[in-house]
Amino acid sequence: MGEQHTFMPTEKDYGYTFGGKMPLAHLRSGDVLSTYTEDCFGGAVKTVDDLPSQVCTMPYLNPVTGPFFIDDAEPGDTLAVHFLSIVPARTIGVSSTFLHFGALTSTSRTASLQPPLEERVWLYDIDVKAGVVRYRARNSDYTAELPLDPMHGTVGVAPAGFEARSSITCDSYGGNMDTPELRAGTTLYLGVNVHGAMLGLGDGHARQGQGEASGVAVEVAMHTTIAVEVIKGLPTLWPRIESDTAIMSIGCARPLEDAFRISQHDLVGWTGELTGLDDLDAYQLVAQAGTAPVGNVVDPNYTMLAALPKRLLHGVAAYGGAHERLRATPHALSIGTGAP
Amino acid sequence: MGEQHTFMPTEKDYGYTFGGKMPLAHLRSGDVLSTYTEDCFGGAVKTVDDLPSQVCTMPYLNPVTGPFFIDDAEPGDTLAVHFLSIVPARTIGVSSTFLHFGALTSTSRTASLQPPLEERVWLYDIDVKAGVVRYRARNSDYTAELPLDPMHGTVGVAPAGFEARSSITCDSYGGNMDTPELRAGTTLYLGVNVHGAMLGLGDGHARQGQGEASGVAVEVAMHTTIAVEVIKGLPTLWPRIESDTAIMSIGCARPLEDAFRISQHDLVGWTGELTGLDDLDAYQLVAQAGTAPVGNVVDPNYTMLAALPKRLLHGVAAYGGAHERLRATPHALSIGTGAP
Amino acid sequence: MGEQHTFMPTEKDYGYTFGGKMPLAHLRSGDVLSTYTEDCFGGAVKTVDDLPSQVCTMPYLNPVTGPFFIDDAEPGDTLAVHFLSIVPARTIGVSSTFLHFGALTSTSRTASLQPPLEERVWLYDIDVKAGVVRYRARNSDYTAELPLDPMHGTVGVAPAGFEARSSITCDSYGGNMDTPELRAGTTLYLGVNVHGAMLGLGDGHARQGQGEASGVAVEVAMHTTIAVEVIKGLPTLWPRIESDTAIMSIGCARPLEDAFRISQHDLVGWTGELTGLDDLDAYQLVAQAGTAPVGNVVDPNYTMLAALPKRLLHGVAAYGGAHERLRATPHALSIGTGAP
Amino acid sequence: MGEQHTFMPTEKDYGYTFGGKMPLAHLRSGDVLSTYTEDCFGGAVKTVDDLPSQVCTMPYLNPVTGPFFIDDAEPGDTLAVHFLSIVPARTIGVSSTFLHFGALTSTSRTASLQPPLEERVWLYDIDVKAGVVRYRARNSDYTAELPLDPMHGTVGVAPAGFEARSSITCDSYGGNMDTPELRAGTTLYLGVNVHGAMLGLGDGHARQGQGEASGVAVEVAMHTTIAVEVIKGLPTLWPRIESDTAIMSIGCARPLEDAFRISQHDLVGWTGELTGLDDLDAYQLVAQAGTAPVGNVVDPNYTMLAALPKRLLHGVAAYGGAHERLRATPHALSIGTGAP
Repeated sequence: MGEQHTFMPTEKDYGYTFGGKMPLAHLRSGDVLSTYTEDCFGGAVKTVDDLPSQVCTMPYLNPVTGPFFIDDAEPGDTLAVHFLSIVPARTIGVSSTFLHFGALTSTSRTASLQPPLEERVWLYDIDVKAGVVRYRARNSDYTAELPLDPMHGTVGVAPAGFEARSSITCDSYGGNMDTPELRAGTTLYLGVNVHGAMLGLGDGHARQGQGEASGVAVEVAMHTTIAVEVIKGLPTLWPRIESDTAIMSIGCARPLEDAFRISQHDLVGWTGELTGLDDLDAYQLVAQAGTAPVGNVVDPNYTMLAALPKRLLHGVAAYGGAHERLRATPHALSIGTGAP
Repeated sequence: MGEQHTFMPTEKDYGYTFGGKMPLAHLRSGDVLSTYTEDCFGGAVKTVDDLPSQVCTMPYLNPVTGPFFIDDAEPGDTLAVHFLSIVPARTIGVSSTFLHFGALTSTSRTASLQPPLEERVWLYDIDVKAGVVRYRARNSDYTAELPLDPMHGTVGVAPAGFEARSSITCDSYGGNMDTPELRAGTTLYLGVNVHGAMLGLGDGHARQGQGEASGVAVEVAMHTTIAVEVIKGLPTLWPRIESDTAIMSIGCARPLEDAFRISQHDLVGWTGELTGLDDLDAYQLVAQAGTAPVGNVVDPNYTMLAALPKRLLHGVAAYGGAHERLRATPHALSIGTGAP
Repeated sequence: MGEQHTFMPTEKDYGYTFGGKMPLAHLRSGDVLSTYTEDCFGGAVKTVDDLPSQVCTMPYLNPVTGPFFIDDAEPGDTLAVHFLSIVPARTIGVSSTFLHFGALTSTSRTASLQPPLEERVWLYDIDVKAGVVRYRARNSDYTAELPLDPMHGTVGVAPAGFEARSSITCDSYGGNMDTPELRAGTTLYLGVNVHGAMLGLGDGHARQGQGEASGVAVEVAMHTTIAVEVIKGLPTLWPRIESDTAIMSIGCARPLEDAFRISQHDLVGWTGELTGLDDLDAYQLVAQAGTAPVGNVVDPNYTMLAALPKRLLHGVAAYGGAHERLRATPHALSIGTGAP
Repeated sequence: MGEQHTFMPTEKDYGYTFGGKMPLAHLRSGDVLSTYTEDCFGGAVKTVDDLPSQVCTMPYLNPVTGPFFIDDAEPGDTLAVHFLSIVPARTIGVSSTFLHFGALTSTSRTASLQPPLEERVWLYDIDVKAGVVRYRARNSDYTAELPLDPMHGTVGVAPAGFEARSSITCDSYGGNMDTPELRAGTTLYLGVNVHGAMLGLGDGHARQGQGEASGVAVEVAMHTTIAVEVIKGLPTLWPRIESDTAIMSIGCARPLEDAFRISQHDLVGWTGELTGLDDLDAYQLVAQAGTAPVGNVVDPNYTMLAALPKRLLHGVAAYGGAHERLRATPHALSIGTGAP
């Protein structure tokens, strides 16, 4: 098995793009990495008075830890990234409205002459042991406990075609997918576009709803442990997730129906490969048996997932059983002890 | 409590629009209706050789049983329709590709110069007792059992503004919403636009995936029993569903992000009314705690739902407890004995 | 040649849908009709203090004069409607913002939590002899003369499939297309869906910009004279316009790219029929030689036109020369003498 | 006045992104540059048998000449690029269908299970003296002369936020806008995002239709002469074009209505600044007097322009008269002598 690495980033290690940044460290296929990610505000929002428009500076939003150079990863390969653990590094999560950003406001693209919504910050108590996130209304006494469900909004590799893309967006190389399905216990498959893949991750969410409608989840720094594997000679066009019970294809695009089409098209092809069904038979199966969890409907590209229960694969393993292999990786559960 | 009605439609009773058709029967608030709906093909697809383009005739697709005139329902009221039971009336369900219709083909609107996909029919065995629908591939030996999950794709009232709309589409009056959430045990709330509401229903699905990607679900005639209640003086702008565990708002529109926006906007407002949260506090709660099940991404208007767990309402009942009241309606489970 | 008809509607003659309304009068192929249309506000906005939300009542917006039953028009035929003259019936045109309607505001579909834009009315002086419309700013002394370019925003026939559609929207049957290309001297081709076609028209604009971004043009009642011809046995799928110099196909849909696709697809097919080019050769010609004037980007369906210079048809006449024949119709230029 | 520069690129000078590439040469504000751009195929398509999928290699499509470092251009400034001349460098222009690319085919994003359209190449004779481009059908004898209207599809500066973006797409920094409005005699205004602006240009079209529906224009290498000016301290959010008669704002986005919204929003603001009209008065003026020429509806981001006649500015000059100043730049009309 591989080596155990620990990488704690300093302020200057964070990146704001996928592509265009030199690697922080090298990993080999089979290695385990424990690292830390800052929240999407770079940790600058700490109280309800820290309005993002005042305490954050563009483009220093959504810092990504990385990239990590994965030895032996070449264009045409697939990088499997298994999330062994994702643990909040703080006991307070933050959320906010963000000027002209979100699903229920006009934006810089869905432009209108209306003024933006009020900028407001919410703080959430995070209780890792109880598995709970506590919502507190700002303008009333209402409170509610929501299930803690830690995930990474942003995971990706360098894009193809010499591109460097903002960590705010997502596309075929991954990036800011903002799907609640990217939690511990799942394996993310990303096509490798450049030598070394250049893996980065960030944007931890203590939880988010499907769609991330307000534009901002329950943001929190994370202590995260991943295991990586290079699957040689097998390309992956769009990001895919495998859990213990489902395979999922991810589409990133606008309008949202194109994200849906991409994800369904990819899942139909993947299902066909694994089951031997022809295109139309696979299309029919996915149409009746699939689910379509929404990721985000707020970022520059929206995210839709297409999911199929693995039991319908009748025992055939995706990517040669990479998920099962990686989830068995021995590792010390890295519950963090607070921010570095 | 109300009366028990049974209405078995004959061929001439089916409608193909919401609005513009005279009522078949009258119901009172509190009444229970057992009726029958034909499948979306009008029952014409019976074997894999019955291609829809050959056995069906436009516009005689997606027949609706109704409308039913609901006494005392006036514009500005809400009609609550609770589904007491939805039971397949045949042991074979049918699905198909449909020329230039579906998510993974160009269509009459998303027009291209490409020829349509092959038209192909699938038959599904429906085993009501086992709760199973059996998929059989057409071009291989692959088969799979899927959970039976009967629902109505199409339920609606007459639109406002003197409109009559095809039963193929959906909008604020309901119609062909094609969401798998519309199953037995749920209550659908529809705003009343005309005197008598003019309720109709059809398009039974033994099951469908989220998104209904191929354009056609596992279609089957249904024996269905509903209970209706008129909620006076309370308007409803967009269709809403209440289950035992969640409240859901439905948006129907293109592009898909507008369906999402409508549903989220409606749920934020509804949540605010029930919890006393102001707009932004409700927006924040829905964004972190909500789910967004996709309905269809194939019909003239797409469907998105926005759902919130009812436990977050801290005991406040929607629509004065209509769902709890209606689900307690005594009724004989009307398992049909086959088509009339 | 045909008969000359004059029809002056009374208040009760206006309709608010295409489909679902009984005819006001009969016309024969070749006849000429002089009639009057009210403005989209039903004439209720007369001063800058007449805010539409206060003086108008839903759904009594966008009144349509008609329908007119066209003898001998059957499903599968095409109705050619040539606009001999369109003359403003008042010397003041009105425009306004309209709550949550327009391209630069959130709307009932592109829903947001923002309040609507201010509701404001503008009055325009219309000088028919000078061919000028005068814009006057509300909050400054700025004024400007714009070219008078009278047109009808709304012209259509009854839809197929037993539908009745609000006069606010457009689709394959025409309706509220809101394209500035529908001016005097052009011929509109509409596919006939029902016996008698059921032609209606309204929504006169003294002028509008491409896109009608604010949601409301320079609205004014019109005295309009048309000549109609039934083209037997030739179906038309989407509305088409012919001017002296161009043929144009109209697509009505959301998102706007689907309106574009529909119009381009239709024009490619039409061009192929008239020139003998195969699909790809026609696609190539249209792509390099065509223009794509925007209609509206505000109504329930958006409008795009695809246009090709007629000189590229090398002398072949569309629809057997209907446009040239109709534009030669002798008629008295019916400059109105004010509203009835 | 400035210096005259000539830059003839060699093969290794071409770039395939905006951002992320070192400059080829330096220019000062006021300088004139005569240069050469290759066609979008890198010159590899020379006969109808040179199918792009066989003779081109991803990502080496749409080569850009540049970037040029503009001395004194800083973030927050605007770079004005005036096109003094754009002259085809070859007598043959090429076009083609391109697999799963274009408006009337499914694509990698608007994904379908349909096979791609046939890949076909067209050659156009370009006669610069006659001002004509000759279309020749591939499957019939049809030919037609179209007006020569040379333009650059692709002009841009480095994006903000450390991004490097493929030359296939466009956004707020310009890029592959593919609008026929970018012809000789116009001035393009681009906001400067990085020190030196990093201007690049390419993708010459002998002409294109509005929308570029087939995905490929009449592609040809160009000899082009530009004059540049840095407008200090005046930021520009989205690309703008000024001609002798109109000001135009460009929006790049999907769906197409967002490109429309961006362009209209920007033009409303620009018009307000120049005329003193408040937002709603400017919105009203643009809505009635504006045109909305479509750019492309095929690239990763679509392009819409919003245009207003300059006479409505009542003599106020945009950007301090930069357009008038630059268009008066003395220069030798650089008609090329063929490819280097």
